[in-house]
Amino acid sequence: MNDAMALDFGVGEELGLVEKTLRESVRSESPLLTEIAMHVIAAGGKRIRPAICILAYKSVGGSEANVGMAIDASVAVELIHSATLIHDDITDEGEMRRGQVTAYRKYGVHNALVAGDFMFVQGFKYGQFLSPESIRIAAEAYERLAEGEMLQDHWKNNVAVPKEQYIEIMRGKTASVFSASAQLGAFHGGGSDDEIEMLGSFGTNVGIAFQIVDDILDIVSDENTLGKSVGNDLREGNMTLPLIYAMNNGVDRKLLAEVISKKVKPKGLVESAIDMIRDSGCIAESHKQAEDFVEMAKRDISGLKASPFKEQLLMLADSVVTRKK
Amino acid sequence: MNDAMALDFGVGEELGLVEKTLRESVRSESPLLTEIAMHVIAAGGKRIRPAICILAYKSVGGSEANVGMAIDASVAVELIHSATLIHDDITDEGEMRRGQVTAYRKYGVHNALVAGDFMFVQGFKYGQFLSPESIRIAAEAYERLAEGEMLQDHWKNNVAVPKEQYIEIMRGKTASVFSASAQLGAFHGGGSDDEIEMLGSFGTNVGIAFQIVDDILDIVSDENTLGKSVGNDLREGNMTLPLIYAMNNGVDRKLLAEVISKKVKPKGLVESAIDMIRDSGCIAESHKQAEDFVEMAKRDISGLKASPFKEQLLMLADSVVTRKK
Repeated sequence: MNDAMALDFGVGEELGLVEKTLRESVRSESPLLTEIAMHVIAAGGKRIRPAICILAYKSVGGSEANVGMAIDASVAVELIHSATLIHDDITDEGEMRRGQVTAYRKYGVHNALVAGDFMFVQGFKYGQFLSPESIRIAAEAYERLAEGEMLQDHWKNNVAVPKEQYIEIMRGKTASVFSASAQLGAFHGGGSDDEIEMLGSFGTNVGIAFQIVDDILDIVSDENTLGKSVGNDLREGNMTLPLIYAMNNGVDRKLLAEVISKKVKPKGLVESAIDMIRDSGCIAESHKQAEDFVEMAKRDISGLKASPFKEQLLMLADSVVTRKK
Repeated sequence: MNDAMALDFGVGEELGLVEKTLRESVRSESPLLTEIAMHVIAAGGKRIRPAICILAYKSVGGSEANVGMAIDASVAVELIHSATLIHDDITDEGEMRRGQVTAYRKYGVHNALVAGDFMFVQGFKYGQFLSPESIRIAAEAYERLAEGEMLQDHWKNNVAVPKEQYIEIMRGKTASVFSASAQLGAFHGGGSDDEIEMLGSFGTNVGIAFQIVDDILDIVSDENTLGKSVGNDLREGNMTLPLIYAMNNGVDRKLLAEVISKKVKPKGLVESAIDMIRDSGCIAESHKQAEDFVEMAKRDISGLKASPFKEQLLMLADSVVTRKK
């Protein structure tokens, strides 16, 4: 974990409780089911969604006494997020995740798929005592996520995807859950409708920035740092922001178009494309776009009353673009 | 649909509302997501879980005014059930379901998997206004379902599975959701703890009988009647009750053991095994076992006060063993 993400944003104690509760939540009569769920949970991940949820809760004045609501909401969101990761790896044929072999590679497609379903259900079970409103927020976020996944698939291997469509995909695929985390925290913290909306929008913009940085890291990072293989998006045929910029910015578009549109991509060709994008100005341009979304996120919560938690939210937003994994 | 299952058990109007609500529940910004969900929903299925839920609601005296609760619970259960069917077909590589090509074969693994996740989430979204208790009942049923799936996988290609383990698998994989349907109906109908328990047990026993009949039909039926290919369990290496009886009842155990333990099963070998089981006494023996579970189910609700709905529940239990698909 790099320095920026090792920060606990002043809510380390609550994040510790999230970890503990996550582990309890996947207990089952089936030892293998628990093992697969723990394989994903224990590998860590950044827990940035729980951090946003808890900070949102506190920043609207949520009480210490009821912070369990924000913790339960975080656990629910993180469980459902982990479920989608397991399922994603199955369809993307991902080999590594969070520095270890993916669940479906280790346990087989059947078991990984069922474990994902189990975690989905546990997520909603954990959310059971929250409120109908919070279940609606979580469910709608995952509806947007599924829609984003379908839109991404629709544009697969297609170099003509407009930047606006890419942003729309990110808004669904990643930002919806960031937004839900912030809204759930604000809602349970007793925030006003305005505060819930502000924080929801903050989550959306942080989430889009987070995903753009993910797309950048898939090109500029290496497997050891990232904990998963690089060049995945290119191999999968997923159009990302660096690729979209590259297609419009004078690098060898013909080579790129060839790589992207080919269903089976020779390794050498993918590596040439990565090198080309890496050495172009597209990475800096993409970074600039991520920073713009972070600035929007920070403006989203400018109306929030001053507090140490608001400061931490601003730091968290900044950390999203400086992260190295 | 055969005559027994074409019966609407006196709740045709409510089942019509379940159909209508199911269709509304899968609307999405993504037309393809809705299309895949509708592919599964519109194919029908027996809606036996909704029928149990609504009859349980009415049999404990649930009011006409609030029958919407039982309908929403039914929709939630049916959505989650449909989600597991889509996912099952992916891992079992099923080609046909409910008389049409399976979702993953038509739309690809990625889209089918995401659509399944979408339906899971819509199920819980639909259940949002019910109550924490009903979300707990539904979530725990699907926890048992996942555990049953894992146990079945554990015994895959293993001829030594004891009958008790088979029943345990069925209790999780199928009966848990039947039981949850009955409990949800009874709970929302204002049933006493005793009534909820009785009806839950009724659901469990009907569910086990239903699954045994499924296993029988996989051997004795044909693709046209069943709406899916036959011999699936044998090909998949899943031990079923007819197989367990066959292994213990003097048919050619060596041939059977060979078929079951082989990972790749030659077509001719599977067909010989099916013929052998079909012609043995194992089918009648399995049928007898299903009837025993139906009798247990009927005894479970003997303490329920007399009503036309109780009569329909008894008829529904009987219909489970006489069905032809």
